[in-house]
Amino acid sequence: MGVVSPVDRDRAPKQDRSRATRQRLLEAAVACLAEHGWAGSTVSVVAERAGVSRGAAQHHFPTREDLFTAAVEYVAEERSLALRALFPQGAAGDRRAVVSALVDLYTGPLFRAALHLWVAASNEEQLRSRVTELEARVGRETHRIAVELLGADESGPGVRETVQGLLDMARGLGLANLLTDDAPRRDRVVTQWAALLEQNLGR
Amino acid sequence: MGVVSPVDRDRAPKQDRSRATRQRLLEAAVACLAEHGWAGSTVSVVAERAGVSRGAAQHHFPTREDLFTAAVEYVAEERSLALRALFPQGAAGDRRAVVSALVDLYTGPLFRAALHLWVAASNEEQLRSRVTELEARVGRETHRIAVELLGADESGPGVRETVQGLLDMARGLGLANLLTDDAPRRDRVVTQWAALLEQNLGR
Repeated sequence: MGVVSPVDRDRAPKQDRSRATRQRLLEAAVACLAEHGWAGSTVSVVAERAGVSRGAAQHHFPTREDLFTAAVEYVAEERSLALRALFPQGAAGDRRAVVSALVDLYTGPLFRAALHLWVAASNEEQLRSRVTELEARVGRETHRIAVELLGADESGPGVRETVQGLLDMARGLGLANLLTDDAPRRDRVVTQWAALLEQNLGR
Repeated sequence: MGVVSPVDRDRAPKQDRSRATRQRLLEAAVACLAEHGWAGSTVSVVAERAGVSRGAAQHHFPTREDLFTAAVEYVAEERSLALRALFPQGAAGDRRAVVSALVDLYTGPLFRAALHLWVAASNEEQLRSRVTELEARVGRETHRIAVELLGADESGPGVRETVQGLLDMARGLGLANLLTDDAPRRDRVVTQWAALLEQNLGR
């Protein structure tokens, strides 16, 4: 520990390279899934996109399920990071800004990739349990952070369900955005629902 | 017209059989899509499920795109029928019941099939424009019927966006239901948001 032997010196950059390759493969897997869907996302296609040989890709992820299970975890982790990066100084009581930022999380490429994963997972036994488990974790974290940023007091009647409904709406807005970019409509819905929340949650 | 010639008598049952076969194929296509996703839904798989020969299936739908474009139209029409069948006598001011019935439309097999179509269409140029167009039509009709059943006055400020947000929430609840059956949670969200609507829409 702390002493770098010649062997370690040799190994460290190798490990870095391996980590970087893995990272590139996961990013390529997510991008592939968002663009081509499950059917079009094979290990070969992903390896080519990542600029990695098929052999190297298979060294990291022997099967398509291994690759996409890891991609599911990667997407969950990235969504969680994006969530925690919202308002690092707190939202200063601006609920319109909080609702808008939460909804934005559901219209970007990470949600798009997650959506493809959910739909693929709903028909693939091997993906399903892992996706469901991670989705539950991300869902709980999203709820907790939303409550915090909105300054909602969950001991009040219905407050928990108000926040849940808001996150369901955000998910529905993300889904509506899949086929058509409906940003102007979305913006008006966000304004109105932020006003409803304001009335309901109090100060 | 009105006079049945011997030729017509012969042709009529044939046309009926042909219509019935077409209908069976479309129902099988929707069921296949909901269960196996786009990747698992080929013309052969659908024909087998419908109990129709591959040749007969190809007579009706020469390509997979033809079959699923027709299935998209069929799903849109069925969703529209299901919508119009809600509260044929009006909702008698029971907004909780209206919200619940609307949300139910988004958690059944038709929504599940529609969801698979949207995700497949988002990556298949040939399906995309037709799905987008039909989705816009079903969306407008859903909005119109929701406004009517909720007795909402859209001339009031924000009322249009309140109803839109409600339908986005219903869509998001449907999506949440894809991987896990979360009926008890959904029920609580429906109760709470129906109460918020009640406050906001007035009488």
